[in-house]
Amino acid sequence: MPDKLTDLIEELALANRILAHEGVLDAFGHVSVRHPNDPGRYLLSRSRSPLLIEPDDILQYTLDSKPVSPPKAHLYAERVIHGCIYQARGDVMAVCHHHAPAIMPFAIAGKPIVPVFHLGAAVGEDVPFWDQHDEFGDTNLLVVKAEEGQSLARKLGRHSVVLMNRHGATVVGGALKELVSRSIFMCQNAEYQLRALALGTPEPLHRGEIKLAGAISLMPNVVTRTWEYWSMRLDAGRAVPPRHGAAKTPRARKTKKARR
Amino acid sequence: MPDKLTDLIEELALANRILAHEGVLDAFGHVSVRHPNDPGRYLLSRSRSPLLIEPDDILQYTLDSKPVSPPKAHLYAERVIHGCIYQARGDVMAVCHHHAPAIMPFAIAGKPIVPVFHLGAAVGEDVPFWDQHDEFGDTNLLVVKAEEGQSLARKLGRHSVVLMNRHGATVVGGALKELVSRSIFMCQNAEYQLRALALGTPEPLHRGEIKLAGAISLMPNVVTRTWEYWSMRLDAGRAVPPRHGAAKTPRARKTKKARR
Amino acid sequence: MPDKLTDLIEELALANRILAHEGVLDAFGHVSVRHPNDPGRYLLSRSRSPLLIEPDDILQYTLDSKPVSPPKAHLYAERVIHGCIYQARGDVMAVCHHHAPAIMPFAIAGKPIVPVFHLGAAVGEDVPFWDQHDEFGDTNLLVVKAEEGQSLARKLGRHSVVLMNRHGATVVGGALKELVSRSIFMCQNAEYQLRALALGTPEPLHRGEIKLAGAISLMPNVVTRTWEYWSMRLDAGRAVPPRHGAAKTPRARKTKKARR
Amino acid sequence: MPDKLTDLIEELALANRILAHEGVLDAFGHVSVRHPNDPGRYLLSRSRSPLLIEPDDILQYTLDSKPVSPPKAHLYAERVIHGCIYQARGDVMAVCHHHAPAIMPFAIAGKPIVPVFHLGAAVGEDVPFWDQHDEFGDTNLLVVKAEEGQSLARKLGRHSVVLMNRHGATVVGGALKELVSRSIFMCQNAEYQLRALALGTPEPLHRGEIKLAGAISLMPNVVTRTWEYWSMRLDAGRAVPPRHGAAKTPRARKTKKARR
Repeated sequence: MPDKLTDLIEELALANRILAHEGVLDAFGHVSVRHPNDPGRYLLSRSRSPLLIEPDDILQYTLDSKPVSPPKAHLYAERVIHGCIYQARGDVMAVCHHHAPAIMPFAIAGKPIVPVFHLGAAVGEDVPFWDQHDEFGDTNLLVVKAEEGQSLARKLGRHSVVLMNRHGATVVGGALKELVSRSIFMCQNAEYQLRALALGTPEPLHRGEIKLAGAISLMPNVVTRTWEYWSMRLDAGRAVPPRHGAAKTPRARKTKKARR
Repeated sequence: MPDKLTDLIEELALANRILAHEGVLDAFGHVSVRHPNDPGRYLLSRSRSPLLIEPDDILQYTLDSKPVSPPKAHLYAERVIHGCIYQARGDVMAVCHHHAPAIMPFAIAGKPIVPVFHLGAAVGEDVPFWDQHDEFGDTNLLVVKAEEGQSLARKLGRHSVVLMNRHGATVVGGALKELVSRSIFMCQNAEYQLRALALGTPEPLHRGEIKLAGAISLMPNVVTRTWEYWSMRLDAGRAVPPRHGAAKTPRARKTKKARR
Repeated sequence: MPDKLTDLIEELALANRILAHEGVLDAFGHVSVRHPNDPGRYLLSRSRSPLLIEPDDILQYTLDSKPVSPPKAHLYAERVIHGCIYQARGDVMAVCHHHAPAIMPFAIAGKPIVPVFHLGAAVGEDVPFWDQHDEFGDTNLLVVKAEEGQSLARKLGRHSVVLMNRHGATVVGGALKELVSRSIFMCQNAEYQLRALALGTPEPLHRGEIKLAGAISLMPNVVTRTWEYWSMRLDAGRAVPPRHGAAKTPRARKTKKARR
Repeated sequence: MPDKLTDLIEELALANRILAHEGVLDAFGHVSVRHPNDPGRYLLSRSRSPLLIEPDDILQYTLDSKPVSPPKAHLYAERVIHGCIYQARGDVMAVCHHHAPAIMPFAIAGKPIVPVFHLGAAVGEDVPFWDQHDEFGDTNLLVVKAEEGQSLARKLGRHSVVLMNRHGATVVGGALKELVSRSIFMCQNAEYQLRALALGTPEPLHRGEIKLAGAISLMPNVVTRTWEYWSMRLDAGRAVPPRHGAAKTPRARKTKKARR
């Protein structure tokens, strides 16, 4: 019997794999969604690389980022990013933290990402910049303490994206598919902004354009088209299905090969 | 019984997939061709990402961009680009609108693309630049009104390509395969022009060279060779066939997996 | 009964596919080898994109670039590049003409490629630059006349590579596998030289280093290792075998699909 | 009956293929590990491109880089890199020598790689730069003599990475998986550092951050996650299994094709 939660868990696992396949996530990064029936919980995978995530990997957390059931696997060290943002922003239904190559030059140089093309308007008019060092001094740059997550959420404020110094970015959305689009278009925008520097200093879109073009990725027409496209690309890229369950040891895999 | 229309519809679906596979189109962008028997109509897919388009997706439109039959699916919001250009340019038989990464730095920086190598001459001597904001002020940058399409067609004039500020480009051709070549070579040209900037400011080809080299991609020899190559690359890139029909829901796909 | 000619034809077809798969050749470019038993002939494919070339596509030409047997297919328009170089350079056993993206910024900006890392020394101490316009004025930039091919061969002189203004490059070798290595390492060298510009102006290797390191790719050890690697990558990249024979029409392919 | 040596040989072969698949190694480069039961020996493949390496290719060497058993195949010319470092650094358990495209601009321009993001801290605070020409004058730049290997090991000193002028880099680790992570993160760091130059001159992380963030890739959680991810990507990228044993001749492959 299908229900909203089961569907959302499937969609969240797919969102993880899509964002990995589109180059937003790699071995690292994670995506969560608020629980559809309980706004005091969110759904997030156990510690696993996003391209491999299946529905069985998804766990439930309270907003202080404690697992609802005793965990049988490693958890992401940085899950407070998600919990702290859901606490601070009742309107946020989905969160993605990533280190996409496209945005790293900006996170490293400390220069702002601005919307430079119509789809890039999904990042909003301003992208705040958070430097963990300002408040916490020397750390390993991971966001693992509640205070660190809260500080990040404050810097995010009412915006849709926050850049994190020397680390990456965190993106939020009013729905999971909105979040996926914003994360992908943010990377395209950053890539184009960087490459346009060879031709001059790119100006942002006009303020009115940002507001209007920022809504393109929410058009039902566009949501359907992009989701179908990204899902298809993901499927086509998998000549060999990812291995389910725990990673096989080299020995186990050899045996499997021998059996073929 | 094969006929010209059926063949052209197959070719148009293939052109969509080729241009997507070669990196000109992505989730967005679209390609049309004028109706082979009725110059007052054109053929264009329903709203779908180009890599997934099959002959059944192709619909007929009048030149004011109204579907000839009542549509059963979403239509591209920007189809006026096609209709307005077919109205203004009797010599144009095919149109492609795209946001290829290679040309975006030029569309964003407002700098001209000029032909810098022999195959790049397919873009012609001048590539006009259209800024929707000049005439229409703040919009979401999509070309959705007849007046917007007409303005774009005026800026295109007698040229083969028009750059669109903060948005992308529109390319035309005297035949579908000519359009496909021009679109691909335009992207290569833009990529080389941008990369050459690290070594100096690249000058365009001589005017006489542009005229002569611009005809290379029309040589029957070359049309056959490129079409075979791009078709083969497309086939080789599809380890898994794209899903036909409407996008499956996550639930439906799971069932299918379980059945395997 | 295997013989030297049959083996070389197989190797030439494979060299075409390897150079296409490694990004040196695309829809365009061609590779030839001198006839193993008759220095007055060379072997080159009919007009076809290199990734698709099979032994049956290889034809024999005299050094004035006339096919030895009446051709049943289109021939490369630019085959005089090969014939004129074999006439001028008795030591050359293989020739590759290409427009690889890595070298195009140099061909467009008119700036020299210099060996900047050990494997890049395969290009030699100097890479001459040929501008077809100097001698022939406005053309379509293709090298199709004997005089054009002879002019290019003169500019190549005793060197291993010649850059061609706004067009591409031509590479020669004392053996087919040497040519393949030089073509690939030339592209790597150009890519690294361009990217190093962001850090400063890269100096060439010392003259003595160029001579010594230029011989690395001729070490039997290295020839075996690279050929095995490039062959394997080519095989692994082909999930679907390329179509043999003439390109299928869209109609024919549809029928085939229906039959599956 | 599995034992530590057999497991480590399997892991070393897999590490070779992972590093090749992730773009650190190509036709060239090699990875070794110290013998688990005899610190006076190390394990390294016969001369073969890393993407093709299987457990049967792994040989044992003494620390003066002589094979323990008479070799039946070509050996890497540069294996002294490994032996000399194991002699000089009792704490080093694994060594990788590579020419990754990401680091080549730095090796060519003679500019330092510095840690610019949290995972990049794995390269350590300083990356020394070794110029073979300083001590040995004109060579082919390969490290083949014991004195050359010893000189390189001296320049490496107590660091984790050494850049090699016009050639590449050598990376060391306290364990094989640590080495694999450091090699991959080093390339990401170099890529981001180079791209950030378009926005300004990137400063390194703070000294305290380097120490703390440099330990991220050693967290058991992270080791498991990255190893599973890289293994899966390698598997998914192999639509066709690599050919085992010696490279087939073109003739042999044709026969195989005919049989299909």
